[in-house]
Amino acid sequence: MPLTPEISASLDRASTATITTVLLKKGIRRAWMRGPMPLASAAGKRVVGPAFTLRFVPAREDLATPASWSSPISTRAAIEAMPEGVIAIADAMGVTSAGIFGDILCMRMVRRGVKALVTDGVVRDKAGVVATGLPTWCRGTAAPASVNGLTFVGWQEPIACGGVAVFPDDVIVADDDGAVLIPKDLVNFVAEEGEEHERYETWVVSEVERGVPLPGLYPPNDEAKARYEAWKKT
Amino acid sequence: MPLTPEISASLDRASTATITTVLLKKGIRRAWMRGPMPLASAAGKRVVGPAFTLRFVPAREDLATPASWSSPISTRAAIEAMPEGVIAIADAMGVTSAGIFGDILCMRMVRRGVKALVTDGVVRDKAGVVATGLPTWCRGTAAPASVNGLTFVGWQEPIACGGVAVFPDDVIVADDDGAVLIPKDLVNFVAEEGEEHERYETWVVSEVERGVPLPGLYPPNDEAKARYEAWKKT
Amino acid sequence: MPLTPEISASLDRASTATITTVLLKKGIRRAWMRGPMPLASAAGKRVVGPAFTLRFVPAREDLATPASWSSPISTRAAIEAMPEGVIAIADAMGVTSAGIFGDILCMRMVRRGVKALVTDGVVRDKAGVVATGLPTWCRGTAAPASVNGLTFVGWQEPIACGGVAVFPDDVIVADDDGAVLIPKDLVNFVAEEGEEHERYETWVVSEVERGVPLPGLYPPNDEAKARYEAWKKT
Amino acid sequence: MPLTPEISASLDRASTATITTVLLKKGIRRAWMRGPMPLASAAGKRVVGPAFTLRFVPAREDLATPASWSSPISTRAAIEAMPEGVIAIADAMGVTSAGIFGDILCMRMVRRGVKALVTDGVVRDKAGVVATGLPTWCRGTAAPASVNGLTFVGWQEPIACGGVAVFPDDVIVADDDGAVLIPKDLVNFVAEEGEEHERYETWVVSEVERGVPLPGLYPPNDEAKARYEAWKKT
Amino acid sequence: MPLTPEISASLDRASTATITTVLLKKGIRRAWMRGPMPLASAAGKRVVGPAFTLRFVPAREDLATPASWSSPISTRAAIEAMPEGVIAIADAMGVTSAGIFGDILCMRMVRRGVKALVTDGVVRDKAGVVATGLPTWCRGTAAPASVNGLTFVGWQEPIACGGVAVFPDDVIVADDDGAVLIPKDLVNFVAEEGEEHERYETWVVSEVERGVPLPGLYPPNDEAKARYEAWKKT
Amino acid sequence: MPLTPEISASLDRASTATITTVLLKKGIRRAWMRGPMPLASAAGKRVVGPAFTLRFVPAREDLATPASWSSPISTRAAIEAMPEGVIAIADAMGVTSAGIFGDILCMRMVRRGVKALVTDGVVRDKAGVVATGLPTWCRGTAAPASVNGLTFVGWQEPIACGGVAVFPDDVIVADDDGAVLIPKDLVNFVAEEGEEHERYETWVVSEVERGVPLPGLYPPNDEAKARYEAWKKT
Repeated sequence: MPLTPEISASLDRASTATITTVLLKKGIRRAWMRGPMPLASAAGKRVVGPAFTLRFVPAREDLATPASWSSPISTRAAIEAMPEGVIAIADAMGVTSAGIFGDILCMRMVRRGVKALVTDGVVRDKAGVVATGLPTWCRGTAAPASVNGLTFVGWQEPIACGGVAVFPDDVIVADDDGAVLIPKDLVNFVAEEGEEHERYETWVVSEVERGVPLPGLYPPNDEAKARYEAWKKT
Repeated sequence: MPLTPEISASLDRASTATITTVLLKKGIRRAWMRGPMPLASAAGKRVVGPAFTLRFVPAREDLATPASWSSPISTRAAIEAMPEGVIAIADAMGVTSAGIFGDILCMRMVRRGVKALVTDGVVRDKAGVVATGLPTWCRGTAAPASVNGLTFVGWQEPIACGGVAVFPDDVIVADDDGAVLIPKDLVNFVAEEGEEHERYETWVVSEVERGVPLPGLYPPNDEAKARYEAWKKT
Repeated sequence: MPLTPEISASLDRASTATITTVLLKKGIRRAWMRGPMPLASAAGKRVVGPAFTLRFVPAREDLATPASWSSPISTRAAIEAMPEGVIAIADAMGVTSAGIFGDILCMRMVRRGVKALVTDGVVRDKAGVVATGLPTWCRGTAAPASVNGLTFVGWQEPIACGGVAVFPDDVIVADDDGAVLIPKDLVNFVAEEGEEHERYETWVVSEVERGVPLPGLYPPNDEAKARYEAWKKT
Repeated sequence: MPLTPEISASLDRASTATITTVLLKKGIRRAWMRGPMPLASAAGKRVVGPAFTLRFVPAREDLATPASWSSPISTRAAIEAMPEGVIAIADAMGVTSAGIFGDILCMRMVRRGVKALVTDGVVRDKAGVVATGLPTWCRGTAAPASVNGLTFVGWQEPIACGGVAVFPDDVIVADDDGAVLIPKDLVNFVAEEGEEHERYETWVVSEVERGVPLPGLYPPNDEAKARYEAWKKT
Repeated sequence: MPLTPEISASLDRASTATITTVLLKKGIRRAWMRGPMPLASAAGKRVVGPAFTLRFVPAREDLATPASWSSPISTRAAIEAMPEGVIAIADAMGVTSAGIFGDILCMRMVRRGVKALVTDGVVRDKAGVVATGLPTWCRGTAAPASVNGLTFVGWQEPIACGGVAVFPDDVIVADDDGAVLIPKDLVNFVAEEGEEHERYETWVVSEVERGVPLPGLYPPNDEAKARYEAWKKT
Repeated sequence: MPLTPEISASLDRASTATITTVLLKKGIRRAWMRGPMPLASAAGKRVVGPAFTLRFVPAREDLATPASWSSPISTRAAIEAMPEGVIAIADAMGVTSAGIFGDILCMRMVRRGVKALVTDGVVRDKAGVVATGLPTWCRGTAAPASVNGLTFVGWQEPIACGGVAVFPDDVIVADDDGAVLIPKDLVNFVAEEGEEHERYETWVVSEVERGVPLPGLYPPNDEAKARYEAWKKT
C-alpha cells in the first residue's frame, strides 16, 4: 500500500502520542522506539515517511576499519540507494559510543532528498550534523566514528530499532516525543483513527479549560459523547 | 506537623543541594531521587509542597487498557482527590517507555491548584505538557500512554520514587538539581539549618571571590569561623 | 613531551571526532569517554590541556562525612595542587547520584587558572557551577554532595574516566561531542595528522556541496586524491 | 473463583513454558517474572498456589532500622497473616543488595504451611534458607538484611514482581524456568488449555524422536492434526 | 578455508582462554561473547564448528504469533537448512525474557547432527533442553516462547551475538569459559599458535608447581625461554 | 589493630549476614560487595583475613598488551608482594568480559599462602582456577585475559570493590552470601557483637522450631529477653 499524499498529510496531523494510542486498539504495544530523540535540527518538527533500513553489527577489528568505507557494502553505498522522501532508520544496537554518521554523510543524505534520520544509536560531529539541517532523531552524540564500535552489514533488511521491529516500507513518524513505527498494513487505519482522535482531544482540552473534571469526560460517558457529537457539528 | 507558610518560605530559600547536606547531618542519605529532572516548564524554578503520592505497577494486557481510564481507581479519580497546593509525585518504577500523563491531565492538575508533578517515569506529549505551565520533574518523554506499560493502582500510599521512599505528607522540594524528599518529622530541622547553611555559603562565596583558598575556609577552621561570625553581625 | 603552545594550537583546530579517527590509525579505540558531556558553560567550546587526575572510591559511612572535607587528602587540597592550565579530570566511577563539585569548588578552580573540569560523574548546584564560567563536561546534575556516595582518595594517580584509562600528563580535548584522551606519547602524531584530516574533510564538504556522491570521494579513490592534492595547492 | 483441588492438580501438570503459551492466546505477554529463579531447595520442583503479596519500598535511614521489625507493619506480622497453602510473593523492586528474608523467617513460613516464596529480590543466609526446605524462587543471595536497602510497607496489595503486575488471589506457578502469574479470571482457561497443550507436545516429541521434521508438524498442518487426533484416541 | 579435521582437532586442544590470547596478537579483542554460558548439558565440554547463524528482531504483536511458526521464514525452516556438524548461533539481542528454543526444536537439531547451540539469549523448558543432550551455551532460562519477545527474520546472515560480529563460516569454539569466534581467515593461525601456547602454559604450570615465582617466568625472560626450549625437546 | 588469632577465630564464627547486621548498628550500610560470589572452590567455605588490594583501570590498546605482563607494575609483581594469610581483593570496576586471573596466577597465590581471592570482576580458565583450590569469590568467568579489558596499575592502594571502599588492612570475610568488609577500626566491635548475635539467633531458631510466632520473639519483647537470658545460663 503506497503512502499516498493524502494519507501522508493525514498522518502529519497526528502526534506520535496519538498514533501509539490508535495502534493499541489493534493490540500493538511495541511501536515507539527507545532511544531516538530529536537533535536541535529536529526540535519542534514532525516527519512522516517510509522506512529505509540500515543495519550494523558490532565492530570486529579485522573488519571495522576506515578501509571498510570503500567496500561495496558500506554506508556510502547505502545512501546512494536511498530514494527521495524516505526516512533512513538505522539499527545501531543501541550503541552510544560510536557515531553512525557525521556531517558529511548527513549532508549527502540531504542532497538526495532524504527526509530524516532515525537511530537507536548516536551521531558524531553534532554541530556539523545540525548544520546540515537533516532532521535527526538519535540517542545523543559521540566523537568516534562508526568503525570504532560497529560494522555496517546491509540495507533494506528487517531491523531492530530501539526495541521495535522495522521492515522496509513500514512507515515512520517522529516528533518531539520520539519516533514510532506504523506497520505498513495498518497505515490507513491509523490515518483515519488518528484524525478523529486528535479532533476529540481538541474538544476535551476546550472542556478542561472551562473547568470540567476528567471523570466522565475523558474517556467520555454517554452525556459527554452527546456533547462531543454536537460540538463536532458546529 | 503542618507545612506552615513560614516553614514553606524558609524551605523556599534553601536549594536541594543544601537540603541534602542538612539531611546528612541526621544520617539521611537517601533523599534525592534518581530520575526526576526539570522539563522546560520547570527550568529555573523551585517548588515546595506536601507530597500527594500516586502508584503504578506494570501493565498487564487484561488490565491496562483505555477502558481502565473510567475505573474508579484511575489517574482521573486521583487528580480529583488532590488538594490545592500539593506536589503530585508518581512511582512509575522508572519506566521510560510509557508517559504517565499528557497535556489533558496536566491541564486539569493546574486547574485544581496542584503545584508541580514529580515522577521517576516520563510524560507524553511534551510540547502540550510544557504549554500547561505545570512545573514538571521527570525522566524525559515518551509517546505511548501509561497503559502501554503501567497499571495505576492507587493514591496516598507509601511509594518508591527514584530510589527514595515517599510517604503521604512528607515534603518535596525540587529545583534545577532535581527533587528531594524531607521526612515530615524533619521539616522544621531542615528549614532552620537550611537557612543558616545558605547564609554560610554566601559568605564563603564572597571569600573565594577575593581569592581565599579553600582549605581552612570550607569547612572553616577557628579563624574562619570567627571571621564568619563577625560578617554575620554586619 | 611537553604540550607546547604550537602543539596545543594545532590540537585546538582538531575536533574530538577527528582525534578519535586519527587515534584509530594507531589502534587506539578506547579514547572517548562515556559520560562527560558539556554543561551550558561548555557548550560550543573546545578545550585542550594536560590531565590533572582526581580519584574517588565509594562512600563508606565512617569516612565520607562533611568532616572529611578538612582531611589532608581532600578535594580542597587537590585543587590547591592544580597548576594553571590543566584540565581537572575526575574518576567518579560513573556515579550519578552525588555531585563531585558545586559552585564554590568550581569558583576556586577558576581562580587557580584551571581550564576545564571533566568527569564521568555529575556536579551539584548546576546554576551555580554554570555561573562560575568553568567549562564543565559531566554526566549531569545531582543535589547531594560527593560524600553522599563517594570518598575522595587522591590526585595525580592513574584513573578510569568513562571507560578510558587516564594517566597524569596525558592530554584531554573536549568539545560538543564529549571528551577524548590523547596518550602523551601520541600527542605530536595526533596534532599533525589531525590538521591534515581537518583540511581533507573541509575539501570533502565542498565537494558534497556541489553534488558529488560519496563512493570514491570519502574515502578517496585515485582520481579524488589527485583533485584533493590540486585543491590543496590553491 | 477458588483454586479448587481439581484445577490446582491440572495446573500442576502444566509447565510454566506451557502456561505462557496458553496465556498468549488471550493476548497476555507479561506473565513471566524477570528475576525469580529456583534456589537449591526449589530445583526440580513445581508449585501452584494463590498469591499472598508483600510490598517493599526503598530504605530510608530513619525508617528502615532493626527497630522497625517490631512495628505492627512488619514482615513478621505479614507472615502471621498468611493462610496455609499460599505462595508468598514479594515486590523487592529488583533490589539485589539486601536479602528480604533469612532462615528464621523462612522457617516460620514453613511452620505456617506456606507453599513457596517468590521474589524479584534476593534472600540472605542462603545455606540456612535452603535448609528450611521452603521452595524459594529469587534473584540470588546477599548478606545484608532487608533494612539495609528496603522498607516493608504492607501485604495483600497489588504489587510489581519482576515486571509483572500481581494482585492478591492471582495464581502463581513456578518451576525450573521461573515463575509465572495467571490472572485469577483466566485460571480455568489455563488449566484446560494447558492440559491439552502438554498432551499435544508429548505427541510431537514422539514424532520428532522417530525423525519427523518440524515444518508441518509443529505447528501441525491438516495431515499432522489428523494423525494427532488418531493418536489421542489410542 | 574449510575447517579440516586436522584444524578442527587442533582447535579442540585449545581452550577459549588460549584462543582469545592468540587472537589478541592479531589485534582482535572482540571475540568472546557476553552472555553464552554452558547449560548442564554443556558443562565440561568443548565444541568446535562452523557458525550457522540465526537472526531475531524484537517481537511485534502483529508478527510474532504462534501462527508465525508455520511461515516459510521460521526457526523450523532454518533448522531443516542446517548441515551436519555446524554450531547454530543465534542473535537474540541479549533478550532474557523469551526462550528462543525449547526441547522440541533442540531435539530436532540433535537429529540433524547439529553440534551445539550458542545464543546471547535464553532457552525455555530447561529440563527438556538439557535432556536432549544438545550442548547449549546461553544466558539462562525463561518460560515464554520466542514470539513473546522476538520475531525470527532469517538465517546465514551476518549477526551480532553477545557483542561480537559473526559471519556465516566463521568458526565457533565454546567451553566452560563461554564461546569465542575465530574469523574464518584466522583459523589456521589460531590452530597453530594455540597448540604452542597450550604447550607453553603446561610447562609454566609445572614450573609454578615446583615453586618458581612468576616474574621472569610468565612471560619468560631469556633464561626461562632457554629452559622451556630444553623442556620441549624432552 | 592487628587481626589477632582470637579475633580472627571469633569472626570465623560469624556469618557475613550477621556482620552486616552488626555494622548497621554503627551506621555502616555499605559493607557487602555487589558481585563477588563463590566459585565451586569456595562453596560452603568461610574465609577471614586482611585485605591486600589490587587496582585496575580500563584497557588502553597501547598499554594493556601481553608485553605489559613483564612491567614492574604487574599482577605478577603484586602477587610476589603478598604476605601469607592475606585475602587478595581486586577492583576490576565490575568488568565481566576480561578475566583478571587464570590458573597460573592463582596457583602462585596458593603457593604464597594467600587465603582467598575476591573481585567484582571475573576470572578465566574456570576449571583450572577451581583446580588450584584457591577459594575465589567473583562475578563469574570469561575467556579473555585481563589485558583485553583492563590495565593493572597498582597494589595496596584504596580501591572500590562492588560498590564498597576498601583500604589496605581492612578485614574481609566471605562465605556463601558473598563478601563483606569490616573497617579496621571496627574489627573488635564486630567480633564481639557478632558472637552474641549468632548466639541469640541460635536460640530464636530453637524457639521457632517449637512453634513460637515471630512477633515479640524476633526482635524480642521483655518476656522473650528474659527467656533468652535464662537459656544463655543453661
